[in-house]
Amino acid sequence: MITIMARITARAGSEDELRQVLEHLLAPTRQEVGCVSYELFHNQDNPLEFVTVERWREQSAADAHLATQHVAAAIQRAGALMTAAPLIHRFQPVD
Amino acid sequence: MITIMARITARAGSEDELRQVLEHLLAPTRQEVGCVSYELFHNQDNPLEFVTVERWREQSAADAHLATQHVAAAIQRAGALMTAAPLIHRFQPVD
Repeated sequence: MITIMARITARAGSEDELRQVLEHLLAPTRQEVGCVSYELFHNQDNPLEFVTVERWREQSAADAHLATQHVAAAIQRAGALMTAAPLIHRFQPVD
Repeated sequence: MITIMARITARAGSEDELRQVLEHLLAPTRQEVGCVSYELFHNQDNPLEFVTVERWREQSAADAHLATQHVAAAIQRAGALMTAAPLIHRFQPVD
């Protein structure tokens, strides 16, 4: 299983609109083949920050996600709402 | 339910030792009253970074965790292994 977390930072004043864009990704993403879970979180201590916690069956499923139409649409809508590109990293569980 | 994520950054060269300290927290933390889940992840793109994803039944359980003997021992051991204090934030799930 692949775990990915992305940190997404809104431009000040754009956090509500960015939240809507990210929220619209939840349903179609969770229906993708190979998506084990896809959660979106809003930082309560820093309202500009959102984090996704994503579990994918394998790397190819995570790659395919980035090539979907819903992600392309979100990137287009979110571009002006963020201060920088999302920080997307792969994580290894430690047990 | 309370979701907390902590970002913990190792001093370069101390990541293996820090990983051991953090790994030792898993078993006793998961046995705490009010701990729903407690996961530790290692950033595969930045080996100096670790992230915990923590679910607690309520805030008091998360507070009690920070007052446990195993956390106190970990803080003492980890102090010299990190570049700064962990960044600990509360998160609200967006659904």
